[in-house]
Amino acid sequence: MGVLLYDLATADDRRLSPYCWRAKLALAHKHIAFDTKPVGFSDIAAIGEGQTTVPVLDDNGHLVRDSFAIALYLEETRPDAPSLFKGEGGQAAARFVETWCLTTLQAAVFPLIALDIYNAIRPDERPYFRESRERRIGMSLEAGYALRDERLEAARATLTPVRHMLRYQAFFGGDAPLFADHVLFGALMWQRSISDLPLLTADDPVYDWMQRVATRYYAVVDKRFL
Amino acid sequence: MGVLLYDLATADDRRLSPYCWRAKLALAHKHIAFDTKPVGFSDIAAIGEGQTTVPVLDDNGHLVRDSFAIALYLEETRPDAPSLFKGEGGQAAARFVETWCLTTLQAAVFPLIALDIYNAIRPDERPYFRESRERRIGMSLEAGYALRDERLEAARATLTPVRHMLRYQAFFGGDAPLFADHVLFGALMWQRSISDLPLLTADDPVYDWMQRVATRYYAVVDKRFL
Repeated sequence: MGVLLYDLATADDRRLSPYCWRAKLALAHKHIAFDTKPVGFSDIAAIGEGQTTVPVLDDNGHLVRDSFAIALYLEETRPDAPSLFKGEGGQAAARFVETWCLTTLQAAVFPLIALDIYNAIRPDERPYFRESRERRIGMSLEAGYALRDERLEAARATLTPVRHMLRYQAFFGGDAPLFADHVLFGALMWQRSISDLPLLTADDPVYDWMQRVATRYYAVVDKRFL
Repeated sequence: MGVLLYDLATADDRRLSPYCWRAKLALAHKHIAFDTKPVGFSDIAAIGEGQTTVPVLDDNGHLVRDSFAIALYLEETRPDAPSLFKGEGGQAAARFVETWCLTTLQAAVFPLIALDIYNAIRPDERPYFRESRERRIGMSLEAGYALRDERLEAARATLTPVRHMLRYQAFFGGDAPLFADHVLFGALMWQRSISDLPLLTADDPVYDWMQRVATRYYAVVDKRFL
């Protein structure tokens, strides 16, 4: 027994899921030792209990699905470890940060990197990925990739509110990262682990923020993609 | 003595400032009885102590400027009244909601309603307003107004993350509004008090949210613009 996180992986074992990254940082934030088990899309059903997405947390035999639900579960079951939300208001606002990240940054970036993801996953999973994701983005993966130059500035612009926030404080969580920081960090690890799209430039305050977050969770981040 | 809020007003006494709206909802949230004093742009200097923007809160002779600073001040000085942030995490995240609202919704809407503001303020303040705001938006007020149809959908799209959040919870603050809710409410009152731009449609979940917020602070909202 122990704590295990089912973690989406490419064919060469890059861990790309933004949602799994959130969960790994949340576990590290709670000072929980854990192992990860790499899975491809087609391995998820075998986790059992009707799982269809990752992350899935196996906490000594108890399975919890969905990254936000995992954060809530950790907050409830590990109340003495550092808080992921620092209060009821922080927990509620983390949901907005999550929906913001999903519907702005991730929505803007996904069409531009979907072909990179396709090329990185196991060959047997590619037909499923292509079919489901082309339906989602409304174009071929190749057409999305071709928009990289045209849409790069718009993708970068989705981070404008973060850049303004960073004039006031070092993290979404104030002077230390909270789950809201894990959410954006996960989205950036997703992009950087799979694609050379130059979303963050070296002079972007969000790049500095990402390095600060990585320093706090250095044991669990993938240093190749910082 | 007592509690007084200097509140930006048009020539016909519509209170338009999004920042003043935030402060009024925060005062109501803290169950503080207050009066407002309508001011035009050119009256702000006369408030004293080098004030250049509103809102300015006069709390029994102590002046506090800036809506976020006013919220922090109220939280600190009225700890026994309902919290505006519900904890340290909520306070930190409120800053993100503020920078998000400023750099997305307000930035998208302002060029489209700047001419409406110009026409509503006192004639003697119009040259200052036109000069400073045309510099800000990079075009004439009339050119901004002409973009209303073209840019309406983009302005509506800035609220996408809020619509997603409202699938999970009734307010930014969870099951009750907090200062983060006051921030967006203020931006919508600003738009609706001054312009007939159809930003919110009746079937928009954000419209329902706005009505819920208004119900909580009914004594201080302007019912004409709900």
